[in-house]
Parts: sequence; structure tokens; C-alpha cells
Amino acid sequence: MSKRGSVKKVVLAYSGGLDTSIILKWLQTEYGAEVVTFTADLGQGGEIEPAREKAQRMGIKEIFIEDVREEFIRDFVFPMFRANALYEGVYLLGTSIARPLIAKRLIEIAKETGADAVAHGATGKGNDQVRFELTAYALNPDIKVIAPWREWEFKSRTDLIDFAEKHQIQVTKDKRGEAPFSVDANLLHSSSEGKVLEDPWVEPPPYVYQRTISPEEAPDKPTEIEIEFKKGDPIALNGKAMSPATLFTALNDFGRDNGIGRLDLVENRFVGMKSRGVYETPGGTILHVAHRAIESITLDREAAHLKDSFMPRYAELIYYGFWFAPEREMLQAMIDKSQENVEGAVRLKLYKGNVIVTGRKSPKSLYSNELVTFEDDRGAYDQKDAAGFIRLNALRLRTLAARKRLG
Amino acid sequence: MSKRGSVKKVVLAYSGGLDTSIILKWLQTEYGAEVVTFTADLGQGGEIEPAREKAQRMGIKEIFIEDVREEFIRDFVFPMFRANALYEGVYLLGTSIARPLIAKRLIEIAKETGADAVAHGATGKGNDQVRFELTAYALNPDIKVIAPWREWEFKSRTDLIDFAEKHQIQVTKDKRGEAPFSVDANLLHSSSEGKVLEDPWVEPPPYVYQRTISPEEAPDKPTEIEIEFKKGDPIALNGKAMSPATLFTALNDFGRDNGIGRLDLVENRFVGMKSRGVYETPGGTILHVAHRAIESITLDREAAHLKDSFMPRYAELIYYGFWFAPEREMLQAMIDKSQENVEGAVRLKLYKGNVIVTGRKSPKSLYSNELVTFEDDRGAYDQKDAAGFIRLNALRLRTLAARKRLG
Amino acid sequence: MSKRGSVKKVVLAYSGGLDTSIILKWLQTEYGAEVVTFTADLGQGGEIEPAREKAQRMGIKEIFIEDVREEFIRDFVFPMFRANALYEGVYLLGTSIARPLIAKRLIEIAKETGADAVAHGATGKGNDQVRFELTAYALNPDIKVIAPWREWEFKSRTDLIDFAEKHQIQVTKDKRGEAPFSVDANLLHSSSEGKVLEDPWVEPPPYVYQRTISPEEAPDKPTEIEIEFKKGDPIALNGKAMSPATLFTALNDFGRDNGIGRLDLVENRFVGMKSRGVYETPGGTILHVAHRAIESITLDREAAHLKDSFMPRYAELIYYGFWFAPEREMLQAMIDKSQENVEGAVRLKLYKGNVIVTGRKSPKSLYSNELVTFEDDRGAYDQKDAAGFIRLNALRLRTLAARKRLG
Amino acid sequence: MSKRGSVKKVVLAYSGGLDTSIILKWLQTEYGAEVVTFTADLGQGGEIEPAREKAQRMGIKEIFIEDVREEFIRDFVFPMFRANALYEGVYLLGTSIARPLIAKRLIEIAKETGADAVAHGATGKGNDQVRFELTAYALNPDIKVIAPWREWEFKSRTDLIDFAEKHQIQVTKDKRGEAPFSVDANLLHSSSEGKVLEDPWVEPPPYVYQRTISPEEAPDKPTEIEIEFKKGDPIALNGKAMSPATLFTALNDFGRDNGIGRLDLVENRFVGMKSRGVYETPGGTILHVAHRAIESITLDREAAHLKDSFMPRYAELIYYGFWFAPEREMLQAMIDKSQENVEGAVRLKLYKGNVIVTGRKSPKSLYSNELVTFEDDRGAYDQKDAAGFIRLNALRLRTLAARKRLG
Repeated sequence: MSKRGSVKKVVLAYSGGLDTSIILKWLQTEYGAEVVTFTADLGQGGEIEPAREKAQRMGIKEIFIEDVREEFIRDFVFPMFRANALYEGVYLLGTSIARPLIAKRLIEIAKETGADAVAHGATGKGNDQVRFELTAYALNPDIKVIAPWREWEFKSRTDLIDFAEKHQIQVTKDKRGEAPFSVDANLLHSSSEGKVLEDPWVEPPPYVYQRTISPEEAPDKPTEIEIEFKKGDPIALNGKAMSPATLFTALNDFGRDNGIGRLDLVENRFVGMKSRGVYETPGGTILHVAHRAIESITLDREAAHLKDSFMPRYAELIYYGFWFAPEREMLQAMIDKSQENVEGAVRLKLYKGNVIVTGRKSPKSLYSNELVTFEDDRGAYDQKDAAGFIRLNALRLRTLAARKRLG
Repeated sequence: MSKRGSVKKVVLAYSGGLDTSIILKWLQTEYGAEVVTFTADLGQGGEIEPAREKAQRMGIKEIFIEDVREEFIRDFVFPMFRANALYEGVYLLGTSIARPLIAKRLIEIAKETGADAVAHGATGKGNDQVRFELTAYALNPDIKVIAPWREWEFKSRTDLIDFAEKHQIQVTKDKRGEAPFSVDANLLHSSSEGKVLEDPWVEPPPYVYQRTISPEEAPDKPTEIEIEFKKGDPIALNGKAMSPATLFTALNDFGRDNGIGRLDLVENRFVGMKSRGVYETPGGTILHVAHRAIESITLDREAAHLKDSFMPRYAELIYYGFWFAPEREMLQAMIDKSQENVEGAVRLKLYKGNVIVTGRKSPKSLYSNELVTFEDDRGAYDQKDAAGFIRLNALRLRTLAARKRLG
Repeated sequence: MSKRGSVKKVVLAYSGGLDTSIILKWLQTEYGAEVVTFTADLGQGGEIEPAREKAQRMGIKEIFIEDVREEFIRDFVFPMFRANALYEGVYLLGTSIARPLIAKRLIEIAKETGADAVAHGATGKGNDQVRFELTAYALNPDIKVIAPWREWEFKSRTDLIDFAEKHQIQVTKDKRGEAPFSVDANLLHSSSEGKVLEDPWVEPPPYVYQRTISPEEAPDKPTEIEIEFKKGDPIALNGKAMSPATLFTALNDFGRDNGIGRLDLVENRFVGMKSRGVYETPGGTILHVAHRAIESITLDREAAHLKDSFMPRYAELIYYGFWFAPEREMLQAMIDKSQENVEGAVRLKLYKGNVIVTGRKSPKSLYSNELVTFEDDRGAYDQKDAAGFIRLNALRLRTLAARKRLG
Repeated sequence: MSKRGSVKKVVLAYSGGLDTSIILKWLQTEYGAEVVTFTADLGQGGEIEPAREKAQRMGIKEIFIEDVREEFIRDFVFPMFRANALYEGVYLLGTSIARPLIAKRLIEIAKETGADAVAHGATGKGNDQVRFELTAYALNPDIKVIAPWREWEFKSRTDLIDFAEKHQIQVTKDKRGEAPFSVDANLLHSSSEGKVLEDPWVEPPPYVYQRTISPEEAPDKPTEIEIEFKKGDPIALNGKAMSPATLFTALNDFGRDNGIGRLDLVENRFVGMKSRGVYETPGGTILHVAHRAIESITLDREAAHLKDSFMPRYAELIYYGFWFAPEREMLQAMIDKSQENVEGAVRLKLYKGNVIVTGRKSPKSLYSNELVTFEDDRGAYDQKDAAGFIRLNALRLRTLAARKRLG
């Protein structure tokens, strides 16, 4: 048993980068624990295979490298988009929704490999530590969680680099200093925060953006696309059926090319402070608009309003890290129930940052031209009914007014 | 007493246009009632003075013509924007919010002039009849409300035109046929609906738009503006203090010129059917984004989330016509309480339909660089606290997981 | 076709009593329609078979007489009790929940018998007309609904009696005058309203109560019972498994004998006015308390709080008549999701109007003595965690306080 | 500076009992800090003056002993009762609501006396530590909070007693062993928890109850009382105007004598576990019922339903300790807005644990006999209106049904 507590084997969320390599080594030296690495392709861009060699070089025997993009979109992103989830009115939750998947795999791998702990590279000030650890505890109540950033004694970037060099971890030149901002990415979005972004009065420098061109750079001609939905999920793009991750990748391309999905936001973290983030969610932004559009003709008013009323709570739960929690699952049951007839097609115009709905149709449409027309509706709607409707809705207001008059 | 019931004097919301002129005459002939006209400048565009002569020509003695733009923005639009109100996730409620003001003045004028009824020109299928009448009853429980479109026997445009000509009401050539769509406008927005817009799969024709140029037509260069807030309301634009309506007019100009604020929507009416509307809310769209931005640094997280959780209900109330209802006033009290420190400046970039926040600052900012920085924070935040925070938040999840393991 | 509109065959909710017999005859004479009767045993007390002979005497050929008590409790009452539904904080919705079942059977019978209309005996001022008709329309959009009380010209009790006698409908002496109050009853409750109950300052006279003895009359010795739950529903009483209606009947007996379940309430009707009702829900009151008690040890905190937050809306939906509406079904999906582990036993003491929980236990209990004990908990809970938990929960409050100090 | 950190002067919430005396001494010896004591009469029963001598004996120079009962009821209890607040459906929040007042005074006294810290005697597993500390931080962001129970090394009751005896703190014989349960009390309630109450299947032993007789012991004759309200608060009892605390004390007497207000509950703590508490809230239980009754005739339906919809959240905030938080203040603003016309009288029958409403009346009543009567209402309500009301409410359901039929 090391001075830090008894850990035999720990599964580490390992990107292959410098920071998680340092963590890997630190777990070995400080905990004396055997380390299992898990590296996931969530669509963050870049190869994940190089992580294998790096892990091997540090003596890791159990190395898990997996492409989880389809699972990510199908089981996490799509269910969330059924809810039209927006945190604080605008944020599409790109980072939040990836954490439960990673943590779930850590726990599963811990079970497979007989590990008694998991470790992650999230810092002690952010939301990600919470999301990782709540998921871990929700799936295994006895798991030990190691959060090196909260535990170690390193006080500066220099300390970290020194440790790396002392342990023969390769430090490329651009990693020596601190990055001007930190990045998280997956198939749903890229986020950037910190350092050059810390003053919310200062516009983000252009080099922060990684995944989209700016509206100004986007083409002068609109692109038109059509998305088909079934049970609330997109299933085809421009007439072509696609798997979830394939479809999402294609949406991302459309979004990137048309300058869509940038967001500069000051948000409220679960741990209590405000932070400023810059997000790029090209495909997600398109999907969000399209999903609302297909719902607009297929979802009943009260179903829609009920969904809207608990959407902020649902988004908050995901942002805070409570994906694997009964309250999220209860809300999901309600949302999924509402999506049974959310199907049909939405046509969109993409143009320099704009996502413009230009049409929606559905075999399950609740839109009735007969009901709404100014022309003769052949009895579908009796305007006389409106008088009674209004008078009974007004009854309580008239009673209040009568009281007020009494003084 | 006429065959329709006993009405002595009726105050009519009179635009001066053909339809309300027909209504005016119809009230005279069918009810035998004395008619008082009320014509308001809500910023719909066009002169309102011509309504005077038209009314006089039809024998009206009590004619009220008023510029209510400042009241409209100050007492109706601004309070609503404090709530970030969006109906069904996207609609800025431009028509809904104007109705209570008009109906309120109708009731006030009825009192002044000793009238026992009010009348409006809204149809029997729409929301506006409800909004007018709920307000009327809420302010005077004994008022009689006449809704000619629900009552008269006219069955077609031709019937109306015949009636007009029979009564020497001038019918200009373009008013003979039915309009290709109907329009409502005020300082907050223009809405268009009906006829050419009835198929939600068909893109609105360009001539529907009245108040904005398209993103494509907008300048290739962004415009930067700065809005200053106090207690949640905008008080200055680009460093210049302005009255509410003046400021809003200036925002509308910025929005129009940059192709901002168009919305093509299928929405759910209070009377039960879906309808398709095209909205243009140039200044309102800018203000909505700016208000969320200033809140993002000045509003506490839980205050913001509480507001968000009630926003859909608040927006629904306004859409349905319950402005003068205790539940709206209760929510307003809550919202206004939250806005006490919502002050500071927001810088925005307007570009071809985009409203992009590029900065926010405030003397009341809750954003703390010290708390959030990756650098040394001199003890503002102890990362060790996060461990306890997470572990207690996880306690119930671990208990659940332990139960699940028992089977 | 009669003067009232074209109706060929109408299914009537027929109690066999005087009022619905008059309606039956009126449908025959005024609409010239063939009438099908539906008489249900919902546990209201009294025989339903006599309705057959009465209907036959009026020439009815298609007579449906059914015992629906098990369906009522299993498919309507139990799902509602899973939600702990209380309208306006106190009312257990005994009348509201029965209407959708009756209306559903009317529509089913209309389909079976080829009827094009349904009719009910609810008045034009109450909630029941809404509940009947919303259900009817929700299950058959083209059905015609006849509500005689809103349509006919009878202006007084005398008119009704005259009509009855003219048509050889037997009028017993006690039915000649108006009843001192009106009653609705089923296995869940009895309600009384009207006339002698109309002044809310006057205590209901003792003869209003039908189904319970008063607390004063109840035995001086408590009765102890034990209810066992599975998936949120009671399945056994005092160790004996029972069908839903059997169990409920037994609970009603316990409640009645111990003076349990009386409620004197001024409530808000959906149609806009306040009314005063006296309710007796003996078994339901016991079940409500017991269900909360079993949830208290088996339901997670956030699941419970989420349920509670939607409960008023859920109760409102049922009270208003929206049982067969997507928003109710969505909420039900959420509620049912929460009940998967709500099982175990609750022990109660019944005493003179009181329902006192004296114990609850469950194989799925989330109550952990180790976590909560003042004694040594062997590491289940680290009190040090609380410090971090509190400090991060306080962070935003401290930031607010710091701002306030700045003035 | 002591080994525990630098604290110069600390204000201690001091009851005068053994435990807080030990804490007092421990603060002196371990922190080397000057201690200021604050002892409040919240209506817990027993004298508070003896605390003075005890404090003096331990060398305390600044001793604050205050009767805060009126402030407690007026500024904390009454505002909470305006909301009909119940935690988890049943708990009247008696302990929760007292903590913010005590903590507020600690902070105020710290300011007066120049203290840099406050200390309390709540344990590390409960809610009270959170409530104390959130309030403290909300009112002074820089205050140091000392929670001895979380910090010290004592591992058992014996350790505590040893420390006491070592420091000449008098230990009466009955305090040597551990109490069979722990108690908190104030004018609103008594709570008991721990030890003999830890098994939720076992009924609480009779000696746990301190403030009420049992329903069985209560008189065989009912007691009738009348409470008068103004702006949602009780102002008179049985025709006699009283100050808040006086009135509450009288209500407590009535409740105690009639066996009213006992509650045996398993609840969910904010720190994550379930716990079992036994509560006695005699006067509060009466007031809760009476307040709902006066609201039932004076509060508009939608105002009432809106209140009900956020009540669980409001109660949760108080239970968790967020009294001095903007979200609670926002909700309070909404609640208080609703109470403007909540006035009138409620008559209640108290009988062996039952609180039975027997009448309510108000000059501001919204109950209209004309609207509701089965008799002729002289046109107050047109039953024909109900048809239109229902048909428009059904329109969306019919549209859904038509879709369903299409399959």
C-alpha cells in the first residue's frame, strides 16, 4: 500500500497526450498501482492508435482502444437532442454528454480487468471531474476514484514538465509552456476555455476556433439540406439513410462549411463559479433547429409545452453530470414517450452562420390546413365555439375584477 | 335595442383600414350603437392621423388617436424581455404583447366615454380575439365584447366588399380581392400568416417580408454595437442614453439592415390548432441575445435557472392572452426581483442574420477571474473541496448502485 | 333528422335513476334517436341490475351492464396513486378519475353498436361534462356528444317531473323535490355538493356523509393494518394478497370504521368558478399515506422531488379531464419509471380519523442505518466531505455577498 | 495562531448545555480564540438565562442572550407558511426554518464584536451544518466557520465526557451516557431523531414525544377555534388580535391539547442519506390547514396552482438551507404578491389529532354562490359557453385521434 491509499489496479482515461501520460506515470510511481489505459475515439479528431505505443512504452499491459462514436451519438447525443436540451438557454452540452460514456467504459473495463479504481485527467475547478465521478459511483458504489489534479503537489506547468522529463516522457516543444487555452472535443463539439478567453469583455481571437470557419468566410451561396426523422432521431440526410455517427459527421461538415454553431458564453459551473467558454457545435446546431421544426408539426401542443417546461432541468442534470441518475432516466422516459410520432422531413437553408427552416412535412403531421385556413373550412371549426371558450377562460378574471372593484 | 342585444355605445379598435371601417359601419347598422374609435400608433408603420378623417366621415364624434409607443415598449415589451420569453422555444411574442395594451385602452376609453361595449377586428380562429377579450374582461367584468368576425353573416370577401360599397366605404382596388397573406405589425415585430403561407413545406415567398432585408442582401461587413442595461432594461445604445421606444427603433434599424430576426414557424394556437407564421423581429432578436449576455455575468446561477424553469409558462401566459392575470403578475414579481443587479454593457456583432456576443462587462459582475483561472488563485478556491462536494452528491447514487447490485 | 341535428343512435351513460331516465326518454323524443344504455358498477353502492328492467321498459334493445370495478382500480386509481396526486393540495380526485373510464366505455360501445353519438347526464356548470367529452373526443374525433342538461328547455325541477310523468317514468316521492345536495360515488369516494353545502361558512350537516362514520363515532381503540406494495401498487393487506378492487374495498371498510377520509373543500373548477364539495375517501386516504411511506424508504431523493414537482400538474390534468391526453401519458411514463423498486410493507395505525404510519420496511430499502447513525459507521460516510460540499454550495452565495458589499 | 488556523474571535451558538459547553472550551483550548456566546430563545422551552452564568464561568466576556421569538415567527415562519411549504409532501420544516435566523444573528454579532469566525454545534452528517454555514457565507463571504463536530478527534461519548471533566465542565448524571435520541426544538416544532428511532419499522416509543399528547389521550370533545388572516398571515385567534409569537404559542397549546401535529417520517437529507425523524408541530399543523382554507376562497385558481407548482422547490430550498439565497427571495416575491387579498376567517374543529375545517369566509371571497348554484343564477353563467369551451379544449385531442386512426 502506497502512502496515498491502497489501490491495486486503476483504469485511466488516457488520451495519449502529455498530461494523461504524466498522470499515468504518476499513478505508477505514487500509488504503485498497475495501470490499465482506455482511449476512446469519440470523434475528437486525430488518431487514437498512437496511444497504444505510448502506453506500451510506459509498461502498460492492458490497453483498451475503442471507437465509440456510434454509441456516443446513438445512446447519448440523440436521446439528449430529443429533449431540445440547452443549458442556460443556449449551450448544446457537447462536453457534458461525452463524460458519462467515458466513465461508463472505465467502470466496465475495471470490472473486466479486476481493477479497483479509475482515474481521470480533469481538474479540480471544472465540471468534468463531477461528471466522471458521479457516473463512476453510480455504476459501481465501491470504486475508488483518483483525480490526480486534485491530489498531486505539482504547483506549476514547470513542475509537471520536470516530472515528465525525469520519467522519460517525451515533451514536444509546443507543450513546454502553457497552452493559450484548453480544448475538449468530440463528434458533437469542440470547446475552448481559459487563459486568452478569461476576460469576457474581450472577443475570442480567431485562432481559438478549430472546427468551423467563420460566417464571414463561409460561402456566399446558401446550401440546402433535408433531414429525415423517425421517433425523434435523424435517420437520413438528403434522402440517404445513415448510421447515427455517419449522419452526424456529415452534419458537422455542412455546419463547418457554412460557419454554423459558434457560441461564446459565460456559463455557471456546478462547482459554483462562472466561466467563459467558446463552443463550436456545427452539426448539433443544425440538428437542434431541425428537431424543433419536425416537432412543430408532429407534437401536440401540451406535449411540447410539457417538454419545454422540464427541459431546463433536464439540461441542468446533464451539465451537472447526472446522466446515470434516476431523475434523468425518468425525464428520458417522458421525453421518449413524446417522440413516438416525431417523424418526417425538414428542409433547411444553411447560410453564413444561419440555420433557416424552409419546410417541414410529415405523414404524422398534426398541422391541418382545414382548421387554420381563412377560407371556408367545411365545418372543421365552429367560430362560435370561441366565444364560449373565451368566456369560460375569462370567468375567473371577471370574478377577480369584480372583487377589485369592491376595493 | 337591436336584434343583436342592447349596446348603447361601443369603443372600437380602429385602424382606419377597410376591414375595421366595415366593422365600424356594421356596428352602427346592426347594433344601432354609437361608436367611439381608438387608433393607436404602436409603431406599426404608416400614419394614424388619416383614421381621424375616415372616422369623421362615418359620423364618429369621439375619436381617440394616440401614440402609445413609449408605453408599449416600457410597460409591456421590456418587462417581457426581462424574462427572456420565447414561446415554443423561438417566438418572441410580438403580436401577443401588443394586444393587452390596446384592450386596456379600449376599456379605459369606455370608462371615459360611458361606453358599455368594446369591439375588435380579430377573427374567430385566432389568438388575438382571446387576448383582446381576456384583457377586457379582466379590467371590466361587466363590459360587453363584440367580435364582429364571429357574429356577422358575411361568408366571403365579396360579401364584405358589397357591404362596404353599399355603405359608401371606399374600397381601393388592391383591397378588392383577398390579400395573399395577412399582416400584423408594431414596434416589436411584423407577422404574416395565411394563404400563401399555409403549406408549411413551402418556403415563404420573399415578398412576405416587410421589415427586414434577407441575410443574403445584408452588407458583407459586420456592424458592431454596444447596449447598456440597468435593472434588466436597455437604457443606452452605443453610448447614447435613449427612451425605450427610441432605443427600440434604433435596434430595429440595425436589425433590419443586417438581415436579423426572421422566423418561419409552425406554432400552436391557444384555440387548439397549429398555424404557420412568418415573423420579423429585428430589434427584439438583438435585445434577446444581449439580455441573456448581460444576465450571464450578473445573474446568480440559481436565480437564472429558476427564471429559465418558469420562462415557458410565462411565455405561454402572454401568448394565450393572460397579461392582466394574477399568475402573470406573480411571475413578473419574481422576474423583476431577479433583475435588480442586471446592469452593464454588452457588445455585439451583427452580420447577415447573426447576432454574435463579443463582450460583456458590468460593475455588478459575478464573474471572477480569480475563481476560474487555471493559474494560481491565491486561495479563492480550494480544489480539495471538490472531492467532498462530489462524494456527497454521489452518496445517493452509490446507495442506489448498491441496491441494484443486490438484484 | 330531428330539429336538434342528425343522430341515429346514441349511447347513454345510464344509472337507472330518475334523471338519466328522463334523459333517455328525452333523447328518444327530441332526437328521435335509438338509445343504447351503459350502466357500470364502479363501486358506487346499490344494485345495477335494476337498470336493465327500467331500460327495457323504455324500449331499449341494447343494454350494457358491467362490473368495471377491477378495471377502475387497476388501470385508473392505482396509476394515479403512484403519483401521490392531490388536487389543490388535498383532494384525492375521486370523481375525476372515474369519468374517463365511463366515457371510454361509451365510445367502445358506440363502435360495437354502430352508434354515432354518446350522451351523459352531467350539468353545464361542472367539471364532469368536460371530463366526459374530452375523453369522448380523444377516443373518437368524429363522435357527436349530447349533453342534455346544456340543451334542453327545462327550467326547473318541476319541468323535469312534468316531463317524466308525461312519459310514464316513475317518480318516487323523495325525488319530487330537489335533493338537498347532489352525490357522486364510486369505489374510490363519495362526493356531495350543492344546496345545503353552498355556504362555505356553514359546516356540512351530518346527514351529508354517506360512506364514513365521523371520527367522534369511531372506536376508542386503534386498528393496526399492514399494506404490502409492489411496483408502487398495493398487492396485499394484512398479509393476504388481493385483487385491486378487493383490496380497495377492504381499505374502504377500515377507513369507514375509523372515521377516515372526510374532506370539506372549496375548490376551483376547470370551467372557472369556485365550488364547495364534501368528499369521503376512506380507503384512498389510507392508501395515499401508505404509498408515501413506502416511497420514503425506496425512492431516491431526486426521483421523489421530481415526482413532487410535477404532481400538481398531473393532478390538474386529471381534474380537468385530460386523462387520455399525451401530456398525462408522458407524466405517467415518468411516474411509472420511478416505481420499479417501490415495494415493501407499511404498517399503519387507524384511529378516529388519523392514519398514522408506524413502520415501513422493504427489501429494496435505500435507508441505511450505517450512513445515518450517530455511532461509528465504519467509514460509510466521511464527515470531512461535508466541509467541501458546503463550501462549494456556498461559493455562489459568497460571490453574491462580495458583490453586495461593494454596494 | 493555533495549529488549527488563525482565528481571533469566534461567535458560538451556545445553548448552555453540555455539548455546546464542551465546544466552547474546545474553541478556547484548540483555537486559542476568544469566544463570544449567543443564546437565543426561539421558543424551545426552558430558561435561557442560565446560559449566562455558565458562559461567565468559562471566562466569556461578551455574552448575547436574546428572545427572538417574535422575529422568528414574523420574519421566518409566517413567510414560509404563506407558501404552504411541505418538504417531501408532509414535513413542516420546523428545524430548517430556525437555522437561518440563528446564523444571521451569529454574523451580525460577529460584526458588532469584531469576530472573524462563527461556530455551531451541528454534526457532520446532518442538514443543520449546511443551513448554518450557507447562511453564514451568504451574509459574510469572508467569515470563517468552525464546525467542531467535523474537526475534533473525539471518537466517542466517553472522549467528550473526559474532555469536559478535565476542563471542569459540569456533567450531570443523565448526560454521561448517550441520549436515546436527540432533540431540536423551537416555537414551531420539536424534532427527535437517532438511536431508538433508527429502525424505521419500529414505532417510536411514547417517551419520544415532548410537546403533544397523543390523539388517544386527547379529550373526547372537539375544540372549535377561529383564525383570522390578513395578507396571508394569521392576525387574530378567536376574535383576539395577537402578535405573531403570542398567536403561535396559543395555537401550540390548542394543538398539544388535542393531539395534533405528530409526524413520523423517513426523509432525504441534503447531504445524501435518508434519515428518520419524529416531529411535533402542533400549532403549525393547524396553521397550515387554516391557511389553505382561507386561500381556497380568496386566491384565484391559477395563482393557487402556480404557487403549488413551485412549492416543492421552495420547501426544498428551505430544507437545504438556502433561505438567504436569491432564488428563495425570488420565490418569496412571487408568493407575497399572491397573498395581498388572502384575508378573512377560518373556523376549525380540533379533535384527537384531526384539524377539520368547518367554515371559511372573507370580505375578499372569490366564491360566488350565484356562479355555482344549481338554481337560477340570473345570467351569471351561460351553460351554452361550456360547449364551446369544451370543443376548443378538445380540438387538439381530436386532431391527435384523427392521426391515430390513420395508423
